Amino acid sequence: MHGNQKINERGHLVFGGADCTELAERFGTPLYVMDEDRIRSVCRGYRKALAEKYPDSTVCYASKAFCCQAIYCIAESEGLGADVVSGGELFTALSSGMDADRLYFHGNNKQAHEISAALDAGVHALVADGDADFDLIEETARRVGVKARVLVRVNPGIEAHTHEFIQTAKADSKFGVALADGTAEALIERIDRSDFVEFLGLHCHVGSQIFELQPFQLAVDALTSFAALLGEKHGIVVREMNFGGGFGIRYLESDRPYEPYAYAEAIAERLRERVEEIGIPAPRLVLEPGRSIVGEAGMTLYTVGAIKEIPNVRKYLSVDGGMYENPRPALYGAEYEAVLANRAAEEGAETVSIAGKCCESGDVLIKDAVLPRARRGDVLAVFSTGAYNYSMASRYNRNPVPPVVLVRDGEADYIVRPETYEDLIARDAIPARLKR
Amino acid sequence: MHGNQKINERGHLVFGGADCTELAERFGTPLYVMDEDRIRSVCRGYRKALAEKYPDSTVCYASKAFCCQAIYCIAESEGLGADVVSGGELFTALSSGMDADRLYFHGNNKQAHEISAALDAGVHALVADGDADFDLIEETARRVGVKARVLVRVNPGIEAHTHEFIQTAKADSKFGVALADGTAEALIERIDRSDFVEFLGLHCHVGSQIFELQPFQLAVDALTSFAALLGEKHGIVVREMNFGGGFGIRYLESDRPYEPYAYAEAIAERLRERVEEIGIPAPRLVLEPGRSIVGEAGMTLYTVGAIKEIPNVRKYLSVDGGMYENPRPALYGAEYEAVLANRAAEEGAETVSIAGKCCESGDVLIKDAVLPRARRGDVLAVFSTGAYNYSMASRYNRNPVPPVVLVRDGEADYIVRPETYEDLIARDAIPARLKR
Repeated sequence: MHGNQKINERGHLVFGGADCTELAERFGTPLYVMDEDRIRSVCRGYRKALAEKYPDSTVCYASKAFCCQAIYCIAESEGLGADVVSGGELFTALSSGMDADRLYFHGNNKQAHEISAALDAGVHALVADGDADFDLIEETARRVGVKARVLVRVNPGIEAHTHEFIQTAKADSKFGVALADGTAEALIERIDRSDFVEFLGLHCHVGSQIFELQPFQLAVDALTSFAALLGEKHGIVVREMNFGGGFGIRYLESDRPYEPYAYAEAIAERLRERVEEIGIPAPRLVLEPGRSIVGEAGMTLYTVGAIKEIPNVRKYLSVDGGMYENPRPALYGAEYEAVLANRAAEEGAETVSIAGKCCESGDVLIKDAVLPRARRGDVLAVFSTGAYNYSMASRYNRNPVPPVVLVRDGEADYIVRPETYEDLIARDAIPARLKR
Repeated sequence: MHGNQKINERGHLVFGGADCTELAERFGTPLYVMDEDRIRSVCRGYRKALAEKYPDSTVCYASKAFCCQAIYCIAESEGLGADVVSGGELFTALSSGMDADRLYFHGNNKQAHEISAALDAGVHALVADGDADFDLIEETARRVGVKARVLVRVNPGIEAHTHEFIQTAKADSKFGVALADGTAEALIERIDRSDFVEFLGLHCHVGSQIFELQPFQLAVDALTSFAALLGEKHGIVVREMNFGGGFGIRYLESDRPYEPYAYAEAIAERLRERVEEIGIPAPRLVLEPGRSIVGEAGMTLYTVGAIKEIPNVRKYLSVDGGMYENPRPALYGAEYEAVLANRAAEEGAETVSIAGKCCESGDVLIKDAVLPRARRGDVLAVFSTGAYNYSMASRYNRNPVPPVVLVRDGEADYIVRPETYEDLIARDAIPARLKR
C-alpha cells in the first residue's frame, strides 16, 4: 500500500480516507475516484520546491490529463495556473471560475475560434507551435484587436520516454520548431517584428512518463543557450521558459519515479546555474505537470462479474468497465495493478486476466493480475488511473462514461455526475424520411 | 473513385450525391458523413444472397460498428435485425422504434440490469458467453419471470484476421466456450435442463476484417459437426446458427475484400451442403455484419489547418479532428486514404502526414498521404470511416464529438447533432467545499 492507500479493520481498501467498498455500494461501479489530498500535496510539493529554488516561477496544471471544473478549483486554490489545449478545456477552466491570466493555450493546430476565445478571455499566453500557427494567431489578434502574448514551442532535439531518451538534430514531430536548423530563430524574429503579437519566451516538452532528470537538464541547457543567442544576435529577451511536463509516475510496484518535486528542483537548479553561467536575464520558470498531479491520485473501482477459466490457458475475470473508460492498455500497452478492495488484506492466490465488458477481444485491462480467488460481486480497485482515463473515455459500445467522485477525509462528492442512457441518445436525430 | 464517390464539374468530391465541399461549408468540420444508399445497398446485397441461397435466415446489423437511432431505422426498413452488446445499445435501438424481437443481446460480462432490460423488452435471444454469464441470465430470468432464449457463443478454434487465420484447439479469448474440450457441450446440457432458459442455438465469431472465405467455411463445418453431436448424444436440436461477422472492407486502394454478399453466399452454401451431408435439421442462419454495412458508407471531412514542413524529414498537415474522433490509427495502426475534397480532380503532388489537433505526438491519422499541395482551408476527406469512428469517439482534450450527417440524393440531415462546449461541462459538479 502506498501513500494514500490503507486497509481498515474490515479488511477493506481505504483511499483518501474513504472505504472503497462503501464507495462502490454508494455510487455504483465503474467509478473513478480522485483523492483531493493527494492532488493538493503534489501541487504543494511543486510550489514549495520552486519557492526555494526558483521563486520567479509558475506551476501550471496540464488539463489534458484530467479535465473537469473541480480540478481547476483545486489547482487555483493551490496557487497553480493551467495549460489548456482546446476551446473545450478553455471553456471548462473559465466556467470553473479560474482567472484567464493563469492560463496558457497550447496546440499544434489551434482553430481561429479557439484563438479568438483565448484572446477574448485574456489568457496569459498562447504557445505558438510554428509559422502557420503564428500566422493564425497574428491574424486573429489583429481581427480581435488584442495584442497576443506568445511563447514559442521549440524542439531542443531531446526525445525522452520512461527510461530512455535520445538527442536528435531534428525531431520528427508535429509539435514545435527546431532549434538546430534556425527555424525557431527565424520564427521568433518574425514575432519580434509583429505589431499584434508579443514574444514572451520559449516552451518545450521532452516527452511523457520520464523517469530521469537528465533529459530535463539537457532541455534547460538547450533553451538557455538559445536564449543567449537570441539576446546576442537579436537583442531579444526570453522572459519565460516553460519546460512542459512529462514527469513519470508509479503505475507498477516496480516503477521507481522521482518524487514530483524532485523534477522541479532539478530543472530549477539547472536553470539557476545556467543563467549565472552564461549571463542571460533570469526568465520566469514555468512547469506544466499533469499526470504527476492527478495520476496516482486516481483509482477506478469495478465490480467483478463473469469469471471464466480456460483450463491450461488463462482465467478471465470480467469487470463492468473496460477500454471505453480506460483505453490506455489498448492504446499504449499500459500496465496497471489492482487489488480486491473488499478483501484487501487477503494474500494473492492466483494470476488472472482482467477483461473489460466491451465487445472486443483486445479489451483486457490487465493481462496478469495477482489476486485472491475472486467471486462475482467483489470490488476490484485499479490504481493510478487518475490521468488519461476519464479524459480519454469514450462511449464505445454505448457504455455511459462513468462518474468521478472526489474524496477527502472520508467525504465523497461527485465532480462528474453519471451519464445516463438518455444522455447517450440526446443528440441522435431521425430525419423525417426515415420515420416509420 | 469507388462506388459512391464521384468528382463533379467543379472538381469537388461528391459522396452519396452530396458535394463534400458544400457539406463542409454548411455543417462545419470535422464532420462524419454517412451515405444512406450505400448502407441500403449492402443490406440488400446480404438479403438477396441469403434469399437465394438460404431463405431461412436473418441478417442482423452489428450495432457496435456505428450506433445511433437512425441506423436502426435504416436497418429495420431493409428487413434487418440488430445485435446489441450493452444496455446503451439496447436502449438506443428500442428508442428508435426497432422491434425487440429483431434483437440479439451479446457480451462477455452482461450486467444484471442489462439482462433484465433485454428480457423485459423481449429481445429475440441473448448470446450466453459462458457458464457464469448463463448463471446470471438464468437467475435474472427467474427473477423477471420470463423464459430467456439463448444462443451459446462457442469457440470453434478458428482465429482469423485479414489475410491470415489459425486453427487452435483452445482459443485464449474472453469470449465464448471451447468446442474442443467439452466445455460448450457441458454448458448446453445445463441450459437444456433449465426451467428458465431455452436453448436456441450456437453463435461464433471468428475475427475481424477478414479477407478470406475459408475461415467462415471452417466455422460452418465446426458448428454443424457439433450440432450433430448434440443431436446424437443429447437429443438437443440447434435451431439457429449465428456466424457473427468480420467480413473485410476496403480501407486502402490495395485492399481486395470480397463483396459483402459473397461472404454470406459462401457461408450459406456451405451450411446447406453440410446440413444435407450430415443429416441435421436445417437451422436458421444468422449473420451479424457491422463494419461491412457502414464502413465504406462513411467518410470524414476535415479542414486543413497548420502546415509544417520539417526539411528533409516530413511535412505535417494538421486537420481539425484527430484521435478523439478516429482512434483507430492510434489503437490498431489502422491505415486510411484521403483526398482534398475541394480539389479532387488534381493530381497528387507530395506525400504528407495528416496530424490531428490533439496534444499528443502520436495523434497522426495518416502517416503517408499523397495529396495535391494543400493550403489552409482545403477540405480533406478521409474514406471508409463509417465503422468504429463515431462509435469509438472520445472527448479527449475536451474536443466535442463531431456530428454525423446522412446523405441521400444530395439531401443531408443530421443523424447525430453537434456537441457543444456546454454539453462538455453538463455533468461537471463543484462540491461546496471547493467553491471560492
